[in-house]
Amino acid sequence: MKQKRIGAQTVRFSDPPSVIGSACVGGKKEGEGPLGGSFDFISEDAYFGERSWEKAESAMQRLAYFHAMNKARLSSSALDYIFAGDLLNQCTASAFSMRDTDVPYFGLYGACSTMAEALSLAAMSIDGGYADNVCAVTSSHFCSAERQFRLPLEYGGQRTPTAQWTATAAGAAVLSAQGCGPYITAVTTGKIRDAGITDANNMGAAMAPAAYHTISAHLADLGKQPSDYDLIVTGDLGLVGRGVVMDFFLQDGVDVAPYYDDCGLLLYDRTKQDVHAGGSGCGCSAAVLCGWLLDGLRAGRWNSLLYCATGALLSPTTTGQGESIPGICHAVAFSMTKG
Amino acid sequence: MKQKRIGAQTVRFSDPPSVIGSACVGGKKEGEGPLGGSFDFISEDAYFGERSWEKAESAMQRLAYFHAMNKARLSSSALDYIFAGDLLNQCTASAFSMRDTDVPYFGLYGACSTMAEALSLAAMSIDGGYADNVCAVTSSHFCSAERQFRLPLEYGGQRTPTAQWTATAAGAAVLSAQGCGPYITAVTTGKIRDAGITDANNMGAAMAPAAYHTISAHLADLGKQPSDYDLIVTGDLGLVGRGVVMDFFLQDGVDVAPYYDDCGLLLYDRTKQDVHAGGSGCGCSAAVLCGWLLDGLRAGRWNSLLYCATGALLSPTTTGQGESIPGICHAVAFSMTKG
Repeated sequence: MKQKRIGAQTVRFSDPPSVIGSACVGGKKEGEGPLGGSFDFISEDAYFGERSWEKAESAMQRLAYFHAMNKARLSSSALDYIFAGDLLNQCTASAFSMRDTDVPYFGLYGACSTMAEALSLAAMSIDGGYADNVCAVTSSHFCSAERQFRLPLEYGGQRTPTAQWTATAAGAAVLSAQGCGPYITAVTTGKIRDAGITDANNMGAAMAPAAYHTISAHLADLGKQPSDYDLIVTGDLGLVGRGVVMDFFLQDGVDVAPYYDDCGLLLYDRTKQDVHAGGSGCGCSAAVLCGWLLDGLRAGRWNSLLYCATGALLSPTTTGQGESIPGICHAVAFSMTKG
Repeated sequence: MKQKRIGAQTVRFSDPPSVIGSACVGGKKEGEGPLGGSFDFISEDAYFGERSWEKAESAMQRLAYFHAMNKARLSSSALDYIFAGDLLNQCTASAFSMRDTDVPYFGLYGACSTMAEALSLAAMSIDGGYADNVCAVTSSHFCSAERQFRLPLEYGGQRTPTAQWTATAAGAAVLSAQGCGPYITAVTTGKIRDAGITDANNMGAAMAPAAYHTISAHLADLGKQPSDYDLIVTGDLGLVGRGVVMDFFLQDGVDVAPYYDDCGLLLYDRTKQDVHAGGSGCGCSAAVLCGWLLDGLRAGRWNSLLYCATGALLSPTTTGQGESIPGICHAVAFSMTKG
């Protein structure tokens, strides 16, 4: 029955859905980073014209959505589904951002893996014959995340060297049954992995085992080597987690370094911007994908890439109760050719 | 391309997936209600042997999962996907409950509509050819919800008459490409509806417009009348929301009362149990479905029913910031016949 399932965790699409529009929106700091030029809109105002950080995040996500829809030349009425989620309690950034679209809505929670989870289900909804046009959208905001997960901004808390900086960014991608690429050729759905890490200021290390596991499963399921992709990109492991992933692969005798990067390291210039181990947040890898990466595929910079968004499935309550951090990683394969 | 889409919001399955196992677990109060006999396990211990309410909820959800898998005669290794979510911040009840299953995991957030959202995506994953066996699971716990959404239990806060009681309950359903029913014949994915209600103690009224909209869309998409179902059941609108839905239909000249009930009213005896307007929480309608309703289909009590789980997509933060309450409702049609 499951004729489209390849191996343990992967689905390969015989007629791959196409990204027909993608966009990303960010804050001032993200605009000052090396990928600043790939953003559709950079807001000088961290509030995005709203009166709270949470409303700001919704406004930012809505901007990304409208920019992507505009590029796809679609109005909301042409969408069959929206898949959306974010880091805020009860995923309200997405619900409030999308509540006026009048589009059937699937709310997701995958922490910082949300964009890959949304793209996986969106691609499956098209390939399965349930939809023609679908939007995947997510966001994070430094200020809404910081006061929810850590401390009030006014407290000015110190950060450890392994800590990552939650990006103020949103990404949206419109998928369609029609289109001329980039195509989503395969998706690998992650299993939860918990290596026992309890330091909520070292989420890169906590998520790295899930990233290694999902990438390995993807390659095994499809009989591929890392070199079969022009780029394998995780999001958002940062400096610590990226090193752990490379070490895991080296133990298998595989050097992924020539093909491998991380969205948390791409978004900021760590030598000039104070982000410690790198960027994080649902919006970090979503914005890097929906701008720099997909633009790069369209421009011929790469022909294929594997986008592996990682999420830490913790909460301040679980950390407070001494629990370790479960991680997850979903992989989405993009190519400019359908094959 | 979207050959399986019927009308604006509905998918109809030509070869409907079957529920091959379902189970529900509850707390002492749920066991004392009219559906107490339909639970697979009632825990006298509200902590389910754990040391916190949050860990208790995960333990309860895991119990529902194992009971359902046991009835389906499957081990976790036979599952292709788990779709799960809950009300806790960052949906940790589900992530921690499912982290050791070693099954590809999609985290969802649909508030109290989660079970219908999970069943919709689970059924689509089977029908689409991506999976043979999938589990949908969710939970809520009165004590973890109360201290997160409202006040510490020790505070002993008063409740308004329109308030609902978060059920301590979990439900799990295993779907398969094979099986002899109950079948999922169609799913209707909800759009977010916000009628401007700002009273977080009246969520039934806030969610009722979404329920009315989704049920109407479902009937219109499939050219059906309410009387085509033996039972239409919302979850969890309670007394207030159920009345609003019936009023909406009466304005259309349709009396749904003979066919219509609500999981929040079914789970408890309001005359004897102090639950005010009725039950709520992801686990309320999930447990009523996975016990009483699916058992009733199997036993011939009904031949077909429409399960319409409703969710209020708010958070304490959005309420505190004066926002109104967006609602959503997803509908899943069950039948003992494939047609």
